[in-house]
Amino acid sequence: MSTRDLIVLGSASAVPTRTRNHNGYLLRWDGQGLLFDPGEGTQRQMSFAGLAATDITWLCVTHFHGDHCLGVPGIVQRIARDRVPHPVHAVYPAGGAVYWDRLRHATIFHDTADVREQPVSGELAVLDTGSLPFGLVARRLSHPVEAYGYRLVEPDGVTMLPERLAEHGIAGPLVGRLQREGSVVAPDGATVGLAECSEPRPGQKAAFVMDTRLCPAVFELADKADLLVIESTFLDADAALAAEYGHLTAGQAGRVAAEAGVRTLVLTHISERYQTADEPEFVRQAAAVFDGEIVLAHDLDRIGLPPRRRTPP
Amino acid sequence: MSTRDLIVLGSASAVPTRTRNHNGYLLRWDGQGLLFDPGEGTQRQMSFAGLAATDITWLCVTHFHGDHCLGVPGIVQRIARDRVPHPVHAVYPAGGAVYWDRLRHATIFHDTADVREQPVSGELAVLDTGSLPFGLVARRLSHPVEAYGYRLVEPDGVTMLPERLAEHGIAGPLVGRLQREGSVVAPDGATVGLAECSEPRPGQKAAFVMDTRLCPAVFELADKADLLVIESTFLDADAALAAEYGHLTAGQAGRVAAEAGVRTLVLTHISERYQTADEPEFVRQAAAVFDGEIVLAHDLDRIGLPPRRRTPP
Repeated sequence: MSTRDLIVLGSASAVPTRTRNHNGYLLRWDGQGLLFDPGEGTQRQMSFAGLAATDITWLCVTHFHGDHCLGVPGIVQRIARDRVPHPVHAVYPAGGAVYWDRLRHATIFHDTADVREQPVSGELAVLDTGSLPFGLVARRLSHPVEAYGYRLVEPDGVTMLPERLAEHGIAGPLVGRLQREGSVVAPDGATVGLAECSEPRPGQKAAFVMDTRLCPAVFELADKADLLVIESTFLDADAALAAEYGHLTAGQAGRVAAEAGVRTLVLTHISERYQTADEPEFVRQAAAVFDGEIVLAHDLDRIGLPPRRRTPP
Repeated sequence: MSTRDLIVLGSASAVPTRTRNHNGYLLRWDGQGLLFDPGEGTQRQMSFAGLAATDITWLCVTHFHGDHCLGVPGIVQRIARDRVPHPVHAVYPAGGAVYWDRLRHATIFHDTADVREQPVSGELAVLDTGSLPFGLVARRLSHPVEAYGYRLVEPDGVTMLPERLAEHGIAGPLVGRLQREGSVVAPDGATVGLAECSEPRPGQKAAFVMDTRLCPAVFELADKADLLVIESTFLDADAALAAEYGHLTAGQAGRVAAEAGVRTLVLTHISERYQTADEPEFVRQAAAVFDGEIVLAHDLDRIGLPPRRRTPP
């Protein structure tokens, strides 16, 4: 299962609209499913998207405002009801543990959900991803309540080149040894380095940033991300409101993408004050400073990761 | 504001479907709005129905299974956010107070909501409706968890007949005195009774019954109701499942309506196991025993109360 994409389950900010449900984003990554910020109604949005509770392996909450977490009880209860056979890892700000506990145990149900909690604290938290082929970190953002953004990083690797291996007669267990040790003595007696028989395979990175003002952590989370999902609650004309409530504008989101060297930028968490006719302006304001791919999220969008980079950024 | 109707916000049982959101029912009654069992997503369903948080004056929860109450946090938070200027009375089973508290305070928000709690306990609880022109009672039902049904009763009254008053020369303050005291001495010297100058105006009744097995309280709640909203989770063929999980079938709901002398029967809380093609069968099974009006609820339906009875039932 090598699917890597983002399914948008909701894209509103504090107030849902006729076209935008509260937040909810499933990042599918080679059989793992990271559900970010399930707002109220995410359970049903998942059915509309053809997704099931069993598609979820991680549940990451940025903060405990309702539009980012009121879907947690429904999701946990579906995990139990649908007998999801694997554990689900739950990540959330430690300072909001009291809210997590209320949501986790919100109503009466037959609680067989295997939810493994990893509350995060401090400026930077490195999650335990066990043997998974990616790392996950959380960084503290700047919002009126304790909020964290998330960054998933696949380590850089190499792609072996069969024709180069054949030139040196390297085959069988010797290939694995070359990968592990960096060089081997080939059957022809020559010492062959890994670089001669492979090319770099840059790891992919995805970042999920909301809710926040501009702050250094935003740029660190977004750094060289192949996919950046970021709140742009307001248009630039409402920058004063964004500052007051601790949010970003579309132009600021574009600036982050540009300075951080992002490839695909997903704008979301759109305020209910805007109409459908305003939507192109979000893209225009981000595009004024960022020349990569820009997607203004709509509910049930499926956004693929861009093809893997050929060389490290 | 003399509107009396039921707005169906959701009609699914434990699992929402593409066409049925989790429960949610707003009974509008002369400017009051009683929101029964808001499930997850009720907040957004209200916008689809053109309703606002300010339309809610009572919040009545039958029990603390998620499909009947996971919309409470969103509703309470919208009451606060939208600055609803009146108090909202909240009624729920006292035994579930721990769940109520979690839902009431589920996440971080600026909590200005004026929610006045009246937990109910025992077999029968009479709610304090203050100066409102109706009474509200809760009766304990039979479900695996503590559950209550609700019954709203408008007292019987009279409609004054202007031509009869005129015959006796009764006018002005004398009319009020006749209504209060039951008889007055008219200007012509005759003693005139209220019955001579009025006709009975039977009060209307509405009942909301879920989730439950058949039990005496179901019939007591439904007694002579103009409108009965009742769960019919299963078709009769699945009566064994209904019994096992503490639910009703469509035929049982019809039997309740028939024996209780109901006028309009609303079947809802439909299991996700049934398809759209099965829906007429719910109505057929209820109609086999009940000859009043039957509505199988669909999301966003608006169901008016039948016209007031001319004579007491």
